[in-house]
Amino acid sequence: MTTGKINVSVENIFPLIKKFLYSDHEIFLRELISNATDATLKLKHLTSIGEAKVDYGNPKIEVKIDKEGKKIHIIDQGLGMTADEVEKYINQIAFSGAEEFLEKYKDSAKDSGVIGHFGLGFYSAFMVAEKVEIITKSFKDEPAAHWTCDGSPEFTLEPHTKTDRGTEIILHVAEDSLEFLEEYKIRELLTKYNKFMPVPIKFGTKQEALPKPENAGDDYKTEYIEVDNIINNPNPAWTKQPSDLTDEDYKNFYRELYPMQFDEPLFNIHLNVDYPFNLTGILYFPKLTADLQIQKDKIQLYQNQVFVTDNVEGIVPEFLMMLKGVVDSPDIPLNVSRSYLQADGNVKKISNYITRKVSDKLKALFNENRADFESKWNDIKVVLEYGMLSEPKFYEKAGDFALYPTTDDKYYTLAELKEAIAPNQTDKNGKVVVLYASNKETQHGYIEIAKEKGYQVVVLDSPIVSHLIQKLEADNENVTFARVDADHIDKLIQKDEDTISKLSDDEKEKLKSAIETVVPKENYTIQMEALDSTSAPFIITQPEFMRRMKEMSQTGGGGMFGMGNFPDMFNLVVNTNSDLATTIVNSDSDTQKSLVKQALDIAKLSQGLLKGEELTAFVKRSFETLK
Amino acid sequence: MTTGKINVSVENIFPLIKKFLYSDHEIFLRELISNATDATLKLKHLTSIGEAKVDYGNPKIEVKIDKEGKKIHIIDQGLGMTADEVEKYINQIAFSGAEEFLEKYKDSAKDSGVIGHFGLGFYSAFMVAEKVEIITKSFKDEPAAHWTCDGSPEFTLEPHTKTDRGTEIILHVAEDSLEFLEEYKIRELLTKYNKFMPVPIKFGTKQEALPKPENAGDDYKTEYIEVDNIINNPNPAWTKQPSDLTDEDYKNFYRELYPMQFDEPLFNIHLNVDYPFNLTGILYFPKLTADLQIQKDKIQLYQNQVFVTDNVEGIVPEFLMMLKGVVDSPDIPLNVSRSYLQADGNVKKISNYITRKVSDKLKALFNENRADFESKWNDIKVVLEYGMLSEPKFYEKAGDFALYPTTDDKYYTLAELKEAIAPNQTDKNGKVVVLYASNKETQHGYIEIAKEKGYQVVVLDSPIVSHLIQKLEADNENVTFARVDADHIDKLIQKDEDTISKLSDDEKEKLKSAIETVVPKENYTIQMEALDSTSAPFIITQPEFMRRMKEMSQTGGGGMFGMGNFPDMFNLVVNTNSDLATTIVNSDSDTQKSLVKQALDIAKLSQGLLKGEELTAFVKRSFETLK
Repeated sequence: MTTGKINVSVENIFPLIKKFLYSDHEIFLRELISNATDATLKLKHLTSIGEAKVDYGNPKIEVKIDKEGKKIHIIDQGLGMTADEVEKYINQIAFSGAEEFLEKYKDSAKDSGVIGHFGLGFYSAFMVAEKVEIITKSFKDEPAAHWTCDGSPEFTLEPHTKTDRGTEIILHVAEDSLEFLEEYKIRELLTKYNKFMPVPIKFGTKQEALPKPENAGDDYKTEYIEVDNIINNPNPAWTKQPSDLTDEDYKNFYRELYPMQFDEPLFNIHLNVDYPFNLTGILYFPKLTADLQIQKDKIQLYQNQVFVTDNVEGIVPEFLMMLKGVVDSPDIPLNVSRSYLQADGNVKKISNYITRKVSDKLKALFNENRADFESKWNDIKVVLEYGMLSEPKFYEKAGDFALYPTTDDKYYTLAELKEAIAPNQTDKNGKVVVLYASNKETQHGYIEIAKEKGYQVVVLDSPIVSHLIQKLEADNENVTFARVDADHIDKLIQKDEDTISKLSDDEKEKLKSAIETVVPKENYTIQMEALDSTSAPFIITQPEFMRRMKEMSQTGGGGMFGMGNFPDMFNLVVNTNSDLATTIVNSDSDTQKSLVKQALDIAKLSQGLLKGEELTAFVKRSFETLK
Repeated sequence: MTTGKINVSVENIFPLIKKFLYSDHEIFLRELISNATDATLKLKHLTSIGEAKVDYGNPKIEVKIDKEGKKIHIIDQGLGMTADEVEKYINQIAFSGAEEFLEKYKDSAKDSGVIGHFGLGFYSAFMVAEKVEIITKSFKDEPAAHWTCDGSPEFTLEPHTKTDRGTEIILHVAEDSLEFLEEYKIRELLTKYNKFMPVPIKFGTKQEALPKPENAGDDYKTEYIEVDNIINNPNPAWTKQPSDLTDEDYKNFYRELYPMQFDEPLFNIHLNVDYPFNLTGILYFPKLTADLQIQKDKIQLYQNQVFVTDNVEGIVPEFLMMLKGVVDSPDIPLNVSRSYLQADGNVKKISNYITRKVSDKLKALFNENRADFESKWNDIKVVLEYGMLSEPKFYEKAGDFALYPTTDDKYYTLAELKEAIAPNQTDKNGKVVVLYASNKETQHGYIEIAKEKGYQVVVLDSPIVSHLIQKLEADNENVTFARVDADHIDKLIQKDEDTISKLSDDEKEKLKSAIETVVPKENYTIQMEALDSTSAPFIITQPEFMRRMKEMSQTGGGGMFGMGNFPDMFNLVVNTNSDLATTIVNSDSDTQKSLVKQALDIAKLSQGLLKGEELTAFVKRSFETLK
């Protein structure tokens, strides 16, 4: 038996890094600036604990493009490296300097914010550069070093005359990556990845007006000076304590995050947790537009203030993905993949934490200023109702603040609603019947009929509402939901009242057969009812159960398999006590036909069913009656 | 100056591979089976050119789970390795065996289908295994070798007693990956990644009925034998020549690809190109459902019969992403990233090729059987119309087969349509006016009015149709499009005919002011017209230009900025020659009011604008008139 050590062929590792390490070449800038930030923050830490006896000052990181020379420079004023350290950290691939640093200064370094991919990330430079130089001067009293490598595993290392502390990386950009020499491109990358990194990043200069001198005359012309153009905000709102931030600060940060958007957030939730994982962030509830798809992917994920992705699937619970804002956690790896996230226990905990935090905040908003919460309800309800369906823990908590608005703009919780309607809307079987409309406009006629009876009608118009109703009924056994057009109102809330029929059984039979000659059986089930004589003579209704199953099947999940494609089923409720019923019974057969036809058309209008050819004919008839 | 070679620290490469090489751990099985397939196909090649003097036989690859022993075995009957080869190919990470093989047998190996990631892919085993064994016997006359490694860089290598040719990989599954010991999980992975790989893959056994013997009596009971359960189809349809496949074969392959779907494809396009890149595949046009979002991500991308992804963004032009089927190309890297695809020249060429091939096929279908093509038009038009808008090359070709169906179910190309309608629908300025409806039902009344004039109306009901019309008008300067409800029909196609007004100027003024007292100015622009006395007295129209700009703005891109939120603008066309106009003029002011109100309501019905409270009141009035 022989034993040995697996050997890694360096010639083959370079192309591997180039090809596999990062799928996006543009990542190189993020990695190099992360390294520069690390080097700066490490120095800050060492000076703060007295281990580096130098003046930390106000260091920044500078990015420069030399278009003619085809070079990009990244210059920091951090702790720098000695020749020995270059040998150790750069020439030994995959030796993570940050890890060693964190190990050594475990306790004190915990909060220094070191990003932690030094070593490996550096080699991403070769994704865009054919040759890379490092010129570096350590804070220690040693000469500067100059390292050069052309992307083969051969390097050269020699002394350099650099005297100021820090590291300069020079990328000699490869022919296939010349786009990165464009100013707009680098600006775009800096804005995308480094906008909130903790050390100021300089990219070029800009003009700034000097203050007008006190003794300036009327002909004073504003004077300008060149100042550093700092592209980042090193102290973004989410890194601060909520107690240090005003409403205005939160709104300003929203504008900083989404400079191209002109809406105002409804409210925000500041996330802040240390244990069992680290996470900070600010989530905003935006006003939702009709197209929910477009709303997604607005939450930005950061790791120690470095932008990672705007796909937070898995980290943020699905129903909250329509929110905006940032989440920052050092516990989420920089290269996140979906299946990784699904498997990771920490990530699941993060998602649960966010859900809990959001429900706590909603409850607090509801308790502190209910009127304000009610005014926002219609903008947030789709998200919350979806959350109630998909997250059992959220559903539990939402009972306290989920609202059911009536057509008269009263906003009830479910418990309040039950209490308010129980006296008048309890049917003869003891069930409290919640009447609802999915559209105030198209169901207006039916709503009016319910209101004439003194009933309250709630408006439930989210696309997934049939699923929610199903769940609410299952959890509240003495409550049942019925849409206002599901049957005649006296059938929806049945009470122990008998209405006496005006027509004899014989007359009813006559009426029914007159109707059946006109109304097609396959479309309508005729339902003869002795109702108030003032009620409409014909009403078209759509039975609750079938309609709801169908809607559930159409909006995915639940309902009955395949029911989405079932035809709509309607009932034609005929009020045998109406004057029209009597008129029809007493007419000749031609008049009967035209009366039934016209009454059916009018009933169809009310349910939005009169269309196409039938509507055209109805309109023509109506115009003719007029003249 | 010192020079040196960058050193790769092996200790750090292992975690690197585990963490970065593949973001999905489940990939290990794909990689190991790819290696087994390579080893088998290499042997096939070597025997075919006489370099390996062994019997190739009917080799297969076997996958076995040992749940109790927490092991997965992957066994092939390929060329195997000698101890020296293990040393070379396994112990030297990132040494691609396949590359060397391809280099050596360049010309003859080109078509042998070697997958080509041997070496690197093997190490993905450590993503799920704490210890990996290789037991391998080369086709050469040398003893078998047994390699063991526990995930540290230390390995052991010793002789083994294995006598049958080939390689067995044994994974000792790690505690955090025990899910991969479940049969259903491995079956799922094999079905996802290896369903069409070129060497048969055995996973367990199944029972198969023996044929009934000829002399079997009535009481014969079917007998079963255990046979290998082969999970893949090594010769999927796309690897064959189109001339060897029938329509039924294509449909069967569709069912093989989508076993859970019950629709039939409308037609298919077989892709096959050698130069300047290799690509095969079959695309299917499915029947589209209403929700186009769900349709996406149905095309599967393969690399040499190994499944890569079902996200073909970039490879397949966007407008064709609603198709189904497979695309197989060795020129697309296994680890595709979006930004990589966008930058890659080959990928752009592939996308162009697919576009061309699809338009050629559509033209052929149109020419060969126009009636059949017409019958499929409504199922495919959304895709094609979107293609016309987004791909200039497709737009050019689509002129030959894009159809414009009329309300009477005639299907014209644009050129045919122009010819057919030019005699009757050319206006006084010499423009051919294409009348269209976006909905046959809701615009029925307006369509009827146009048809009474002998005009043809085409149905254009795709969501993006306003953009397409805009483009067609720009490219055909003597053609203009107008929706049937954009104005009164005599205004839509203006001819040199004067209609004489029945009313005097004075009476017209009286009529107008009577109307203005009822009709709100902010909603309707009143337009007095002397039309046929038989035309409707009131018509509500929606001017073409504003409506179209608004629609374009709403469906994204084009139109005018911000117009999506503009209110709808309507005209009320009053026919001063109608009998109702005369009646109104001669009535007292109360009658005038009720006549105008009722006529406005009826006109609104026709345009679908009578809603809510107004509709409820109209229905009530109408029922009252009846009794």
